[in-house]
Amino acid sequence: MPAPALHREPIDKSLLAQLHQLLGDRLSTATAVCDHHGKDESYHAPHSPDAVAFAHSTEEVSAIVKLCSDHKTPVIAFGTGTSLEGQVAALAGGVCIDLSQMNQILRVNVEDLDAVVQAGVTRKQLNEYLRDTGLFFPIDPGADASLGGMAATRASGTNAVRYGTMRENVLALTVVLADGRVIRTARRARKSAAGYDLTRLFVGSEGTLGIITEVTVRLYGIPDAISAAVCDFPTIEDAVNSVILTIQNGVPVARIELLDAAQMAAINNYSKLNHKVAPTLFFEFHGSPAGVAEQAETVKAIASEHGGNEFRWATTSEERSKLWQARHDAYYAALAQRPGSKGWATDVCVPISRLAECISETKRDLASSPVPSALVGHVGDGNFHLVFMIDPQQPEEIAEAGRLNDRMVARALAMEGTSTGEHGVGYGKMDFLVSEHGEALSVMRSIKSALDPDNIMNPGKIVRM
Amino acid sequence: MPAPALHREPIDKSLLAQLHQLLGDRLSTATAVCDHHGKDESYHAPHSPDAVAFAHSTEEVSAIVKLCSDHKTPVIAFGTGTSLEGQVAALAGGVCIDLSQMNQILRVNVEDLDAVVQAGVTRKQLNEYLRDTGLFFPIDPGADASLGGMAATRASGTNAVRYGTMRENVLALTVVLADGRVIRTARRARKSAAGYDLTRLFVGSEGTLGIITEVTVRLYGIPDAISAAVCDFPTIEDAVNSVILTIQNGVPVARIELLDAAQMAAINNYSKLNHKVAPTLFFEFHGSPAGVAEQAETVKAIASEHGGNEFRWATTSEERSKLWQARHDAYYAALAQRPGSKGWATDVCVPISRLAECISETKRDLASSPVPSALVGHVGDGNFHLVFMIDPQQPEEIAEAGRLNDRMVARALAMEGTSTGEHGVGYGKMDFLVSEHGEALSVMRSIKSALDPDNIMNPGKIVRM
Repeated sequence: MPAPALHREPIDKSLLAQLHQLLGDRLSTATAVCDHHGKDESYHAPHSPDAVAFAHSTEEVSAIVKLCSDHKTPVIAFGTGTSLEGQVAALAGGVCIDLSQMNQILRVNVEDLDAVVQAGVTRKQLNEYLRDTGLFFPIDPGADASLGGMAATRASGTNAVRYGTMRENVLALTVVLADGRVIRTARRARKSAAGYDLTRLFVGSEGTLGIITEVTVRLYGIPDAISAAVCDFPTIEDAVNSVILTIQNGVPVARIELLDAAQMAAINNYSKLNHKVAPTLFFEFHGSPAGVAEQAETVKAIASEHGGNEFRWATTSEERSKLWQARHDAYYAALAQRPGSKGWATDVCVPISRLAECISETKRDLASSPVPSALVGHVGDGNFHLVFMIDPQQPEEIAEAGRLNDRMVARALAMEGTSTGEHGVGYGKMDFLVSEHGEALSVMRSIKSALDPDNIMNPGKIVRM
Repeated sequence: MPAPALHREPIDKSLLAQLHQLLGDRLSTATAVCDHHGKDESYHAPHSPDAVAFAHSTEEVSAIVKLCSDHKTPVIAFGTGTSLEGQVAALAGGVCIDLSQMNQILRVNVEDLDAVVQAGVTRKQLNEYLRDTGLFFPIDPGADASLGGMAATRASGTNAVRYGTMRENVLALTVVLADGRVIRTARRARKSAAGYDLTRLFVGSEGTLGIITEVTVRLYGIPDAISAAVCDFPTIEDAVNSVILTIQNGVPVARIELLDAAQMAAINNYSKLNHKVAPTLFFEFHGSPAGVAEQAETVKAIASEHGGNEFRWATTSEERSKLWQARHDAYYAALAQRPGSKGWATDVCVPISRLAECISETKRDLASSPVPSALVGHVGDGNFHLVFMIDPQQPEEIAEAGRLNDRMVARALAMEGTSTGEHGVGYGKMDFLVSEHGEALSVMRSIKSALDPDNIMNPGKIVRM
């Protein structure tokens, strides 16, 4: 996607000197380093920052932001660079703060089922660390993203249908504001009615209101029993209707993922599997042994009513890992179907009663298009994704993908849905917020102006100032 | 509690004339009506508004706020008047907007498990309306509060340990801003990453940022099996430790309520029951028949390890209603123990690992005080309440309750807890936010200034401007 036109000032040499004094060789202006930090995993055009600062502490982030604030220089936070809507692109240049070296797990409160981590800790690192405690952190967007980045983009993923998104699973944040002040958004209590919900305000704000440096997350006991199953269906509507009925019946399924036939063909090839090439649901059930058996029976009965085939079970930890790794590799698998292609990933989310209709109409739209695509979805939430496999040499394919994306978002909005269930806004989806939020967008703009009057925090993202 | 000193301008006669023209006899300046609308169920000093406007629609609320904004006159929203920290007090006079006649249930989306209601709909009204759908709305703060008020104060209550608070159960809001503009904070999709989380910003803002006129709430299927039980313990520590272990074991208990011996004596007298006068837990289990049996077995084993007596079961709907009605009447029951007394209710919430310690220290503090009190708690959340039964003729009792309250809040804050788990801030707890939030309070103030530059929305609550 072409870049939005933002004015770009050359960076002030005296700022670079001050940052260098603060950070020594943890400040880099090397082209390769800057280029790496200006792009994410999306199709959106990268924009390199002028410098990258590798921070080690909240105090350092505060000092860096204070210096940038004095020079009115943009500041962009960077975790693992796995965003999908251009969130890390330095549209107006400036200083990228790389938080990946802030990777300390500060505290695990086993009794309270929570952990306090620095923003650069990744979800896999946390779960590895928790291994002996019997606890785990469930939010799983696929990529091994940093928890700071996941909080900043309000990530969710395959487990959200049971455990919620980052919105529900962040208890508190430490945030560096646009003038360098440091706040803590909440206490460690599970609930509070003590003032405005700053935690939820910063969750999903994509670095435009402040930089998240520490995250307190909820943890859960590893369930006594976990089992996963795969089930294919005659049509995508049958699969989706099974999901809808499962949710409406209140079955506390932990994961319920849809892959269309194209996506199944792709993962078969990529992950050397031999699933049937048909619309397929991947399930995972968590609970006591009896509870898991009961959930599975209910869901099997629903699937069978909708023409679903036999459940193929993955009960050992290895089988489950293989199954979910294949699901997580769906994006790369889709791209491998068209060698040399680049992916354009997009997502929408609708009320579940509209999900079958929204997916069917979208699939019809795609069927008549020359650009190949694959569909996967966290369908228990009403959320699904498309990836377009684009030939980068063919600008008309980009235009066509853009047109299909516009139509899909418009369709989701017309069904009381949202332009993005989990990828966020970045600069890729900014224009859709006008029709999605109407006047509410002006409230977002007022908040942005109040907290970042000079528009230095990740400018050009979420709200156009 | 004495009133904070806020400057009070006499209301502009021309504003009253304009409001009268808009609303006819739905504008009242009668003393009795104004007095009724300036007080809630708390001990805090009432402050009557100058006029009360009974609104029938979002458009009317918008028109009223616009007129008040032109005159820079305060606007206070009123639902059922059941707040507990002085939230409805018109500290600087102005116009109270009574939303109780906005009591239409606009839409129930059975398939999506949600409902859209006007702000004046009460929780009991909604559940009555849902009776034939197989769905229910779980949040239950005791009082039959309006859903607008419950959203505005981020209410929770007995079911929160399983179903979350209003924070988790509001999907979207319609809000009238300080200048009369109307926004919708979100779509009906279950999750979204499309911009700042305005829904969560307005939930808990107590009418200081805007007036909530419509609420979209999540609904749940009525569980196949529900059963409730009562169990008494030798000491309050034993009861609390049973709760902690239950939560840490991830048992999805729907309700887990603590009542101390004083509170049990009170409900025995008030509700003509004959429970043992000892620290007691009230449980409720929701799920499939097998799931409920499994949960109950786990919890019984935990309770028995901590000296808990036999579970006394309430399985029929009538028995359960009686049990929970007694719990909900706890406040009135406590006051009835000391005829002529007035209640001062307060609550705090701490990480569950500190709950036993926090309650024990608080009980020790209370034991040496001449003011009688009773303790109840939504202990699964780490949240508990005190009610002081105060002789209003004895000012030293008010001072003493204030001192005990200050000490309890300080204790909770020292344990990484919050000054209020669910009652909210109003003007009763405003001063505690300084130590609770530190610099973050200035962010709340910036947001307040940005959205309500003339400070007309419920002035003198949450943040001091």
